[in-house]
Amino acid sequence: MNDLTIVDIARLAGVSVSTVSRVINKHPDVNTQTADKVQKIIEEHDYVPNNSARNLKRESMKAVAVIVKGFSNPFFTAMLGIIQQELEQSGYTMLLTQVETDKDEVSAAISLCKEKKPRGLIFMGGNFTHTPEKLAMLDVPYVMLTFTMHWDVDRNTFSSVTVDDYTAGYNVARILAESGHSKLAVIGSNANDVSISHLRVEGFCQYIKDAGLDFGNSQIAYAGEFSYEAGYNAAKTLLEKSEFTGIFCISDILALGAVRALYDAGISVPDEISVIGFDGIDEGRFHIPSLASMYQPDRDMAYETVRILLNNIRSGAKHRHLVFDAEFYKGESFAPCKDV
Amino acid sequence: MNDLTIVDIARLAGVSVSTVSRVINKHPDVNTQTADKVQKIIEEHDYVPNNSARNLKRESMKAVAVIVKGFSNPFFTAMLGIIQQELEQSGYTMLLTQVETDKDEVSAAISLCKEKKPRGLIFMGGNFTHTPEKLAMLDVPYVMLTFTMHWDVDRNTFSSVTVDDYTAGYNVARILAESGHSKLAVIGSNANDVSISHLRVEGFCQYIKDAGLDFGNSQIAYAGEFSYEAGYNAAKTLLEKSEFTGIFCISDILALGAVRALYDAGISVPDEISVIGFDGIDEGRFHIPSLASMYQPDRDMAYETVRILLNNIRSGAKHRHLVFDAEFYKGESFAPCKDV
Repeated sequence: MNDLTIVDIARLAGVSVSTVSRVINKHPDVNTQTADKVQKIIEEHDYVPNNSARNLKRESMKAVAVIVKGFSNPFFTAMLGIIQQELEQSGYTMLLTQVETDKDEVSAAISLCKEKKPRGLIFMGGNFTHTPEKLAMLDVPYVMLTFTMHWDVDRNTFSSVTVDDYTAGYNVARILAESGHSKLAVIGSNANDVSISHLRVEGFCQYIKDAGLDFGNSQIAYAGEFSYEAGYNAAKTLLEKSEFTGIFCISDILALGAVRALYDAGISVPDEISVIGFDGIDEGRFHIPSLASMYQPDRDMAYETVRILLNNIRSGAKHRHLVFDAEFYKGESFAPCKDV
Repeated sequence: MNDLTIVDIARLAGVSVSTVSRVINKHPDVNTQTADKVQKIIEEHDYVPNNSARNLKRESMKAVAVIVKGFSNPFFTAMLGIIQQELEQSGYTMLLTQVETDKDEVSAAISLCKEKKPRGLIFMGGNFTHTPEKLAMLDVPYVMLTFTMHWDVDRNTFSSVTVDDYTAGYNVARILAESGHSKLAVIGSNANDVSISHLRVEGFCQYIKDAGLDFGNSQIAYAGEFSYEAGYNAAKTLLEKSEFTGIFCISDILALGAVRALYDAGISVPDEISVIGFDGIDEGRFHIPSLASMYQPDRDMAYETVRILLNNIRSGAKHRHLVFDAEFYKGESFAPCKDV
């Protein structure tokens, strides 16, 4: 069994994980020399991208539980589809459980482990503040997909697959500022947030600070949940209390709700206000205007999650922490600031 | 255990299922007299709407398999969320399986039954052409959600929860025609379709025939799959081969793709062309323009599906066939024809 992941290939080739991903997916914008080098390393190491889980020996009926916080988010749907298929093809049944936004996903997982005896767990969406003592009550391997734990949890006890949320948030502010936007606003999830949304907001605010731009509490609104309507309402709140020419929404469905709120207020996107989302859901590209967003490599993240978990379940392979880069997609909802 | 469903209440009150649903959900547009009558019957019969499955006695770990054809469709996501929660609260684990659009869902279910021994099945999306012999190989109760079988299958052998797709399709054409649209087009799923999409197209075409409007093959395009992109491409095909002022798309995500294709072709929706979708997904209301659509009562359909299946599994209650009405939502993508 080949234990290499996309991260190992990237390290061996001396390129980023995103570049390896682009080579594997035959994406045009990689220079030929780099692509050849990566391809050679892939071949030398018999690395089977993405679908390696398929080649593992089929075992009899065993289950992996997937605990989803934010089930209706289309960003999760695409990944869930891949996870289910990959598990199935490796002989594992997927047990799907939802956890409400205000509930504790680790508590839910602990009782699920007792009742249903899964061989492993995948958490999709969750908080990063669980104590090592509580996490120790999970008696099977688990991977956190789209989030990770604070540094006080021993990283040899769990795996995670994420994007660099902090840097992505930082880059959104930078992209806006470099296009002349100096009055910025952000829609986060909750004021007392202990999840990835918080990292995105934090990175965003750090750039603003580094660049010496003005920023105050009136420029933040919290959606409370991940839905079109929550994004709509948060944008309305922002419009009432602040002035800005660029908004960062920490998820695409919030951003699509926000764009509609601006439209209903008679504000043109992007002529008067630019909107940038996060995730890269399909519908964003077909929206009018199409949605600028930080794209997460969702397919790769889902494949790698299953691969890491099954390697761990089957051969006790050590835990891993993959961090992908989010990439900026320049949709029509973004334009240089006209106030300059 | 109370065995009444929403259909029984509707029959006892002498009103439609939609009316009962509106009363239960405290929808404003039911006249007070009707609402009182329905409410009285609900109380007389101790009918607990929607969440009755919650009251059933919890049993030890047992599974229900859900076989989904079209997993990425957000219309299914909302229903899946409800089904998982309802099953969970009744002590059943949901086993989720996806079937590709071109694969046979009953064959998939037969092997799943052998391997995983679920207590019952829910099919979401599928064809209506399976033979009684093949269906007989399913050795547990099952409910077809959003579709049903042809009349050659004994209706006492399975349950179904659907909307009246044919009438809904018929009504879309009528609504368009009554607003002055005489040149109509439709985006279906496949030319050799044997699913609900076909019933929607058939109803639509029947109205056109009844009204004596012109209609030919150039006015139909097939998307092949349910995605924004497929809707986008189908609309482009229609624009190349035909002229029309109203399009019916048999699903909302196809419709949203089609609206974008018209936009890219420089055509204004709804000023030049009206677009009507089907399903009533959340994002349709936040889209620009908001999407006119035939809304399916997805929450009620999901609740009733679980209720019927669990009653059947637990007490051998007889099979049922619920047919809800789809309701027209007048979104901004629809307007009277200006050519008149």
